[in-house]
Amino acid sequence: MDIQRYLQEKKEEVDAALERYLPRREELTSNLHKAMQHSLFAGGKRIRPILSIASFEAVGGTGERILPFACALEMIHTYSLIHDDLPAIDNDDYRRGKPTCHKVFGEAIALLAGDGLLTEAFRLMTHRPEKEQSQGDDALAIGLINEVGLAAGVLGMVGGQVVDIESEGKAVDLPTVQYIHTHKTGAMILASVRVGAKLGGAKEILLKTLTRYGENLGLSFQIADDILNVEGKAALMGKQTGTDLSKGKATYPSVLGVAESKKRSKELVEIAVDALKQLGPEADPLREIARFIIAREY
Amino acid sequence: MDIQRYLQEKKEEVDAALERYLPRREELTSNLHKAMQHSLFAGGKRIRPILSIASFEAVGGTGERILPFACALEMIHTYSLIHDDLPAIDNDDYRRGKPTCHKVFGEAIALLAGDGLLTEAFRLMTHRPEKEQSQGDDALAIGLINEVGLAAGVLGMVGGQVVDIESEGKAVDLPTVQYIHTHKTGAMILASVRVGAKLGGAKEILLKTLTRYGENLGLSFQIADDILNVEGKAALMGKQTGTDLSKGKATYPSVLGVAESKKRSKELVEIAVDALKQLGPEADPLREIARFIIAREY
Repeated sequence: MDIQRYLQEKKEEVDAALERYLPRREELTSNLHKAMQHSLFAGGKRIRPILSIASFEAVGGTGERILPFACALEMIHTYSLIHDDLPAIDNDDYRRGKPTCHKVFGEAIALLAGDGLLTEAFRLMTHRPEKEQSQGDDALAIGLINEVGLAAGVLGMVGGQVVDIESEGKAVDLPTVQYIHTHKTGAMILASVRVGAKLGGAKEILLKTLTRYGENLGLSFQIADDILNVEGKAALMGKQTGTDLSKGKATYPSVLGVAESKKRSKELVEIAVDALKQLGPEADPLREIARFIIAREY
Repeated sequence: MDIQRYLQEKKEEVDAALERYLPRREELTSNLHKAMQHSLFAGGKRIRPILSIASFEAVGGTGERILPFACALEMIHTYSLIHDDLPAIDNDDYRRGKPTCHKVFGEAIALLAGDGLLTEAFRLMTHRPEKEQSQGDDALAIGLINEVGLAAGVLGMVGGQVVDIESEGKAVDLPTVQYIHTHKTGAMILASVRVGAKLGGAKEILLKTLTRYGENLGLSFQIADDILNVEGKAALMGKQTGTDLSKGKATYPSVLGVAESKKRSKELVEIAVDALKQLGPEADPLREIARFIIAREY
C-alpha cells in the first residue's frame, strides 16, 4: 500500500470533520475562534486520529462513528501543544513553521483557546453522527470517554508532562525517561488505537493485540521525536531543533545516546508490527504507520 | 430551615466525595497532587455542587448518583480559578486568604494542575457510584456530559472569559456585561441546577421551572460578586477588593452603579425564587441558597 497517500486521504477526512465539529465563527468571539483554528489547522500530521481510524477499520468498523472520537483526540493533542508552548512551560515561538498560538494571540487567549479545545473535545465525544443514531452504544461511549480522560489526565499525559518539567536540567535514569514518554506521549497514542478498536467492535483477544501494538508504537514514536530533535532538519520540521539538549530535557538520546536510541525505536516498531501477525491486510495501514514513524523526517 | 447549617452539611459531603474521587497521592507526582489539593481545598463555598444536590433532591432524587457530577462541577470551577489567577490573565496573588496556586507551585505546575482538574472532571462524570450500578442511565449521562461541556466551553464559561478579557479598559454597554456574566458565571450555575434536575428525574415542565431559577440565579450571583469587589471586606473575602475598578473590568457596578446593581441582583433573586412557586418545602434549600447569594459577605 501507498502509506503517504493513505495518510493524506485520512488527513483530509479528519480535517473536514474538524471543520464541521468546531463551533462556528459566528458563535464565538473572533479571536478565540481564530486562535483555535490557528493551532488546529497548523499542518499537524493527524497521527492520533488516523491511528484511531486505522484501528477501527482493522477490526471491521465501518461508517462515521469513529470521527467524533478521532477529532476529539486531535483537539486534545492540539490543546496540549498550545499549553506546552506557553512561556510558563516551554516558551516556544515556532511550531510547524508558524508562530505559536500565544505569539499571535497573546498568552491569555492562547491559554483559553487550549482550555476551550480540551473542553470541546470531551463534548464532542458525546456526539454521535446522524447516520449512526440507531446503534445504542451509550455504555460504550461512556467507557471510551473514561479511557480518553485517563490517558489525557493526571495519570496520563498531564502527569507525564509534570515529570518532564520536574526532570529538566537533572541527571535522570532510563526508568524516569520511560515514565515520561509512556505517559506524556504513549498514553494518548495507545488510547487512540484502543478507542478505534473498541468502537469497531474488537473482542478481548483482538483488543489485547492492538493494545500491545499501541504501547510499543507510543514509546517508539516519542523516541523518534527525541532523535529528530537532535538530528532533524529545522526547515523540514518547522521548529527549532537541539532544544531538548539546551533545556536539559530528559530524553532517550540524553540517556542512551543517539545510536542506541535508534536501535530501541526500531525494535519497538518491530514488536508493534509483530503484534499484528494474526491480522491480515486489513491491518496494513497500522503496520505502515508504525514504519512511517521511525522513517519520518518531520 | 437553617441555611448556614444546610450549606455546611452539604459542603462536608462534597468535600468528602472530592477526597475520594481525586487520584491518590501515591499515583501522582507529589507537586501535581499538592497543587490540585491546594486549590480544591482552599475553602470554597461549593455553591455549584450544592446547587446540583439541592436541585436533585428538590425533584425527588435520592442516593449518591449526583455526587460524581457535583464534584466534577466543582473541579471545573477550581480549574477556571487557577487559570484565571495566572499572570497571563488576572495575575492574582491571593484567593480565599491563601496564596494562589502558581504563587506556591510555579506557573507551569499551576497551569497543568488546572488542565488536570478539567480532564479529571470529565472522567469523573463517566463514573457511577457502586450502589447505583443498576440504573442503566448511560444515555442520560452522555447528555449531561454534553451539557456540562457546553456550559464550561467556548460557548459558555471560556467564551465569557475571553469577552471579559477583551473588554478590559474599554467602555462597555449593558448587553456586553450581561453576555460576560451569563457566559462566564451563569452558564455553569445554570448547568449545576439542570444536571441535578435531570439526574433526579425531572420531567419537562419541572426542568423548565428550574432552568428559569438557574438562569436568574446565575446572573444575580455574578452581580453580587461584582458588588462585593467594590464594597466587600478584603479580610472576610480573603482576596483584594477594588481590583475590578483598577483593572477596568466590565461589571454591573461600572455600568449601572452600585445602588442600581444591588436592585437588579435582588430582583433577579426574587424572579428565581418565584419560579419555584409550584414546588413545596422540598425546594426550600434552593430558595434559601438564592437569598444567601445576595446576603453573603464573602
